[in-house]
Amino acid sequence: MKLYNEANPAPNPRRVRIFLAEKTLSIPLVHVPMREGAHKSAEFKAKNSLGQVPVLELDDGSTLSESIAICRYLEELHPSPALFGSDPWQRAQIEMWTRRIELALANRVGAVWINTHRFTARLGTQYKDYGEAMRVRALEVMQWLDREIGTREFICADQFSMADIVALTTIDFAQFIGIEMPEDARRLRAWHGRVSARPSAAA
Amino acid sequence: MKLYNEANPAPNPRRVRIFLAEKTLSIPLVHVPMREGAHKSAEFKAKNSLGQVPVLELDDGSTLSESIAICRYLEELHPSPALFGSDPWQRAQIEMWTRRIELALANRVGAVWINTHRFTARLGTQYKDYGEAMRVRALEVMQWLDREIGTREFICADQFSMADIVALTTIDFAQFIGIEMPEDARRLRAWHGRVSARPSAAA
Repeated sequence: MKLYNEANPAPNPRRVRIFLAEKTLSIPLVHVPMREGAHKSAEFKAKNSLGQVPVLELDDGSTLSESIAICRYLEELHPSPALFGSDPWQRAQIEMWTRRIELALANRVGAVWINTHRFTARLGTQYKDYGEAMRVRALEVMQWLDREIGTREFICADQFSMADIVALTTIDFAQFIGIEMPEDARRLRAWHGRVSARPSAAA
Repeated sequence: MKLYNEANPAPNPRRVRIFLAEKTLSIPLVHVPMREGAHKSAEFKAKNSLGQVPVLELDDGSTLSESIAICRYLEELHPSPALFGSDPWQRAQIEMWTRRIELALANRVGAVWINTHRFTARLGTQYKDYGEAMRVRALEVMQWLDREIGTREFICADQFSMADIVALTTIDFAQFIGIEMPEDARRLRAWHGRVSARPSAAA
């Protein structure tokens, strides 16, 4: 088994690396240099026709893409610690929160990246007005997340979970492209400090 | 247990209704009239602070949102027929495909809806150039999906699954807003005919 991935700040490969670190699992990593377009080569697209990392490749050559699908598969092989939850309702809450972070926040951060950042300008037409609107929306979602976290230690389910991994990688990538957590989002900032202090965050 | 939902063509509540029909499960449905803004009321936002349907409410008042989280929870309570897969690798493939359809297709179709459609014009600023670009992209993704389906009967894993439900509801919603499957996407159209012929598609 090996994992095709890209270094920081790419958020999706990092989700899997943090997941592996929390599980104390080790999988050989194969670097796919995205700045050189390696993920769009015919050789790589034979592994994932969408030309995206990460991709997990089994020893028989079977491939699996989509970071959350990869993590859930690894959770089935290595159930402890349970990062997708330990009972049906906990699993449901973690899935809900993972999706909320992805759909409400990560999608907007991605739209800012694609439509406004100088690093992506060469990749195609940028719709800057749309991108700037998504920047405002991403900040509103961070305020919503701040209220939702409230006094909780983690995003949900009273434990560190996949939802925390998705939120951390999203917020760190947002910072990389210049979207800082609002100053007054103190509960979100405190949560970010807690999860960033875990050894896995270095992955 | 009850399900707060909205009638067709809203794609996310329909995912859950098709899922229930495939399981031959019945849950009382509570209609949330979105055109009247009922999903943005304080009463409803106490169930889902994002103001979105569907929401599953348990008898103790606990709530769960996000259509896929709801379906996965119901799958745990009622495992057969398995619509998320029957073994770790099959589950991984179905999750990958569900996410590919959501991220590559449903997100683009949603962007066309929000940014170009006359029904959504009153909800906020529309970025029409961006929306039209996403229409082109959605059609490209349908061509990609046509190639990927190839001679397969279903989206993946040799069985009807959650990935088919997500693809069907997305493509039917795309049609509703004027994005038709390309004429030459014959394998996609044949798949669409097969899954639309299932009794659950009427849900």
